Amino acid sequence: MQKPLNVLNSAINNQVIVTLKGNREYRGVLDGYDPHMNLVLKNADELINNEVVRKLTVAIVRGDNVIYISP
Amino acid sequence: MQKPLNVLNSAINNQVIVTLKGNREYRGVLDGYDPHMNLVLKNADELINNEVVRKLTVAIVRGDNVIYISP
Amino acid sequence: MQKPLNVLNSAINNQVIVTLKGNREYRGVLDGYDPHMNLVLKNADELINNEVVRKLTVAIVRGDNVIYISP
Amino acid sequence: MQKPLNVLNSAINNQVIVTLKGNREYRGVLDGYDPHMNLVLKNADELINNEVVRKLTVAIVRGDNVIYISP
Amino acid sequence: MQKPLNVLNSAINNQVIVTLKGNREYRGVLDGYDPHMNLVLKNADELINNEVVRKLTVAIVRGDNVIYISP
Amino acid sequence: MQKPLNVLNSAINNQVIVTLKGNREYRGVLDGYDPHMNLVLKNADELINNEVVRKLTVAIVRGDNVIYISP
Amino acid sequence: MQKPLNVLNSAINNQVIVTLKGNREYRGVLDGYDPHMNLVLKNADELINNEVVRKLTVAIVRGDNVIYISP
Repeated sequence: MQKPLNVLNSAINNQVIVTLKGNREYRGVLDGYDPHMNLVLKNADELINNEVVRKLTVAIVRGDNVIYISP
Repeated sequence: MQKPLNVLNSAINNQVIVTLKGNREYRGVLDGYDPHMNLVLKNADELINNEVVRKLTVAIVRGDNVIYISP
Repeated sequence: MQKPLNVLNSAINNQVIVTLKGNREYRGVLDGYDPHMNLVLKNADELINNEVVRKLTVAIVRGDNVIYISP
Repeated sequence: MQKPLNVLNSAINNQVIVTLKGNREYRGVLDGYDPHMNLVLKNADELINNEVVRKLTVAIVRGDNVIYISP
Repeated sequence: MQKPLNVLNSAINNQVIVTLKGNREYRGVLDGYDPHMNLVLKNADELINNEVVRKLTVAIVRGDNVIYISP
Repeated sequence: MQKPLNVLNSAINNQVIVTLKGNREYRGVLDGYDPHMNLVLKNADELINNEVVRKLTVAIVRGDNVIYISP
Repeated sequence: MQKPLNVLNSAINNQVIVTLKGNREYRGVLDGYDPHMNLVLKNADELINNEVVRKLTVAIVRGDNVIYISP
């Protein structure tokens, strides 16, 4: 049995996929999080409808919109 | 009488179906949860409109979007 | 005068109809609940637009999406 | 000056109209409530787009979806 | 500088316009409120898309849906 | 570094633009606020899709719907 | 490991991109924030569907609508 935030914690510094509402996806290195699942991503690709639309050196992603995070 | 979180707890390590808003479904092994119904799934298929679109070794699914979980 | 959660409590082990947002309905035996109106249903039919689409031996339904519960 | 919950309280055992989001309306006897405006209705007609679609002996209506209650 | 709830308080017994999400408007006498902006209106006209669709002797309007209240 | 509520506070008695969800905009004098960003506006124009649709002597605007406030 | 609010804090006085729900984007200097991710921006361009529609000397942006902030 693993708590969701512990799994998130063990993904720090690893590549993750973050899927948000509205067909948005972010792929980058997880650099931080808080208990609301707000995330810090580094060197992330932003995808809308599966196409890369932007590259983000750093992004603070609001937890509200997260559907899932996959380390 | 069974509390929802107790039923969730007894589903740990079992195969579950997780139905989310937006015609999303996840089928995998329940590896963890928290009181917000955030979930950890292992070896999960992601289905959109009943078709498998991705396989996820590990996924932290936000409880917010859950419609139901069926062990 | 009856508190909503007390009415829910007295419906335990009885057949209930649960109507959710998005034209979803669940008909089954109420096996549990919590103060957020998260529910445990047993032997439930899932209906979308009034058609049975799935049978669920056990389902933990998130209270968030509930419109009403009718014992 | 009347507090909303006091007005609700004085409507107990009276006929009320409950209008919800999504063009839903319930007309029945108010049998209970709680501070979240979750309601217990008895002998209620459910109307969608102004047509009676179902009769409910008892219904626990979630306060979340309420637009207004008219005693 | 006026606190929103104080302005609401000084509108008690006055005619107000209440605009809700979904093109709904209520025009009546403010008879009460609580800190969630739940309101009690008396002798209110309900307007949808700027047309009066119903007259309500008393209505408890849920604060959640309020866009603005104009005394 | 300025806290958002302090900036709001220093805009009291000044003309502000308030943009809400649903293509609504209010332009008037900020007369008050609370920590939820509920606002009191005086002598405000209400604009929908960039057209003035109403003039409001006083309006209590619910913070929930605010996208931004520009002093 | 970096907490999201700490990353936000270190972006004070720097140029940031703020992406909101509804295809809205703000590009300006971050002048403040609070724990809800309410932001103060200075000299910001407002973009809707990637086109600049307005220039804002100061804007208090509500955290609720934020998808991500990129310093």
